[in-house]
Amino acid sequence: MCTILIAPNSFKGSLSAFEIIDYLEKGMKNAYPGINILKVPVADGGDRTMEVITRIKNGETIRVKSVDPLGREITAEYGVYDQDAAVIEMASSSGLRLLKPSEYDPIGANSFGTGLLVKDALDRGIRKFLLGVGGSATIDGGSGILKALGARFLDHANQEITDGGGGLDSLARVDLTQLDERIKNSEINILCDVENPLLGENGAARVFAPQKGASPEDVELIEQCLTRFSRVTLETTGKQTGEMKHGGAAGGIPAFLHAYLGAKLVPGIEYILDLAGFDEMVKKSQLVITSEGKLDEQTGGGKAPHGVATRAKNQGKPVLFVGGAVPAKLDKDSLFDMVFSISNGPQSLDTAIKNSPALVEQFGYNLGQLIKVLK
Amino acid sequence: MCTILIAPNSFKGSLSAFEIIDYLEKGMKNAYPGINILKVPVADGGDRTMEVITRIKNGETIRVKSVDPLGREITAEYGVYDQDAAVIEMASSSGLRLLKPSEYDPIGANSFGTGLLVKDALDRGIRKFLLGVGGSATIDGGSGILKALGARFLDHANQEITDGGGGLDSLARVDLTQLDERIKNSEINILCDVENPLLGENGAARVFAPQKGASPEDVELIEQCLTRFSRVTLETTGKQTGEMKHGGAAGGIPAFLHAYLGAKLVPGIEYILDLAGFDEMVKKSQLVITSEGKLDEQTGGGKAPHGVATRAKNQGKPVLFVGGAVPAKLDKDSLFDMVFSISNGPQSLDTAIKNSPALVEQFGYNLGQLIKVLK
Repeated sequence: MCTILIAPNSFKGSLSAFEIIDYLEKGMKNAYPGINILKVPVADGGDRTMEVITRIKNGETIRVKSVDPLGREITAEYGVYDQDAAVIEMASSSGLRLLKPSEYDPIGANSFGTGLLVKDALDRGIRKFLLGVGGSATIDGGSGILKALGARFLDHANQEITDGGGGLDSLARVDLTQLDERIKNSEINILCDVENPLLGENGAARVFAPQKGASPEDVELIEQCLTRFSRVTLETTGKQTGEMKHGGAAGGIPAFLHAYLGAKLVPGIEYILDLAGFDEMVKKSQLVITSEGKLDEQTGGGKAPHGVATRAKNQGKPVLFVGGAVPAKLDKDSLFDMVFSISNGPQSLDTAIKNSPALVEQFGYNLGQLIKVLK
Repeated sequence: MCTILIAPNSFKGSLSAFEIIDYLEKGMKNAYPGINILKVPVADGGDRTMEVITRIKNGETIRVKSVDPLGREITAEYGVYDQDAAVIEMASSSGLRLLKPSEYDPIGANSFGTGLLVKDALDRGIRKFLLGVGGSATIDGGSGILKALGARFLDHANQEITDGGGGLDSLARVDLTQLDERIKNSEINILCDVENPLLGENGAARVFAPQKGASPEDVELIEQCLTRFSRVTLETTGKQTGEMKHGGAAGGIPAFLHAYLGAKLVPGIEYILDLAGFDEMVKKSQLVITSEGKLDEQTGGGKAPHGVATRAKNQGKPVLFVGGAVPAKLDKDSLFDMVFSISNGPQSLDTAIKNSPALVEQFGYNLGQLIKVLK
């Protein structure tokens, strides 16, 4: 009994999946040098997706000038691999992490910067796109991306509407005559980390807008704007956008990029696990370890770990979850056979984060010792 | 691979050794019903020693009237087993836990109440005594116990000195003529949880008095009082008391009960492990689990777990420590092969204590699952 598969998601705000792999492996090998460890860094379309895919594919990271959700110049990055493929993360140019909380602007924030990254990639000959949509600050239905690629958003007077989700309130038609030809001939997969539709009670505005700074009034205005954009899109493309699964991620980007650019919407975790050849590695392993900063099965946390666990269970393999914080009692229906926290006692979140490298390594050491003792 | 020995010390202020055994066993059996579990509740002369020994020996608990360290009436308890043996814990009548911090009185607090328990046991025909000395509030060299048994502590004017460690400052002689004959014919083992001597830099006053409320001036006064008592004791009994190992536990009680009553001083953990037949159980086990609320190898914490680990290692058996709080990094020279915290994430001590039953059970469950998976 000696092959362990480590497939961690990052600890948000603390360690990357790569760091977790490194510290766990160091601890385990320190305890039990003979152990065989397989490794898959995991992401789900959200945090760190670009980094994970770029490294899995041995790609390179490109840094380019772009703009943030409020139009300010920034340097952003995306990954290129296999010569003609790019992985672009919304968070890089259009992410909440680029704004101070006082700058959150769900009405005005727009995804133009992400469009600039797509355009830069097109200029480099890229025709295959992976777009990770987690962590966005925008609820503009991807109108910013489409604008950057040549689409024109016009009101009844044939004037360009203002940027951001709020501007869609006066949208009358979308002019695609100047849309970049190259993007029409590209393959686009959108890696989604949520399944919510564009509109309605579980939609982009009502569920996610408050996290992006929307007041209750803002939420209703944005719902109205997205509904209008959806109607104009039906007139323009003949495509329905309101109810499709995943359509409401990242302020509606999947729904509209599907309608205008033929983008496919895929669950991020499944795509990445396939890319990494995960199932083959599970087959060779006796135990699968996954992780995330905080596991809260009630609130749908742990999406990437659940994807990992589901596939491991499909092959009848046991799954160990290790995180910063876990429930005091495992759900009866949990996919995880055991859940551990790296925590070494009562402490503040800050202290836990500061010590997380040592704590992950120590957990790896403990586990390696147990495996050595029990094998 | 199926026999696990659980030998926990209590989590001070939270769970007893018995509770830890129950929750661990419940969790482990829930995960892996086929597992074989051996159990030894552990104590080291300190917290819960009386309860552990009484239960190991299938004895009974006696409740009697006594007095606390300040002379106030209380009901205290001790254990009786094998008909003629008693286990008495200092903490029961003379413990810090009986006082509010504002009542701590290292000068005046005395061990008379513990002497009353000894006397009560003598009246019941008890002639074998185990005295656990952890958790005491007193630094009176056991003069209170000896007074309760008939010894008289006199000054130069042949007047009784005042009670408590401070009164020894005027001690001129100890009159043993009225000392209870029955105690002279008894066997007394004092279960010590520290090795400190009575006097000097590592002695009862300088190391332990501050925890009992002593100011720096108090510490020097008490050192002077114990030194005087030691000199008078040499004159009275011909016995040296200042430097013997364990002599400085519980405000000097082991040193003086050795001199006046022939008490033997033994390491509490070793005595209890022998009593429980621990070594035989280790022989049958593949893994030994021990515990304590907080493990801090630098400050000599984890005395009982170290005793457990030392014996397990003597037989080449791996030792798992699980506690409420453990170091973020294991000592290189640690006797423990692995150290886990039950903590499930960043949290306050209060929350951790409140959740400790669920957390210990969950740790047991996790461990049972791992054993099932890895065996």
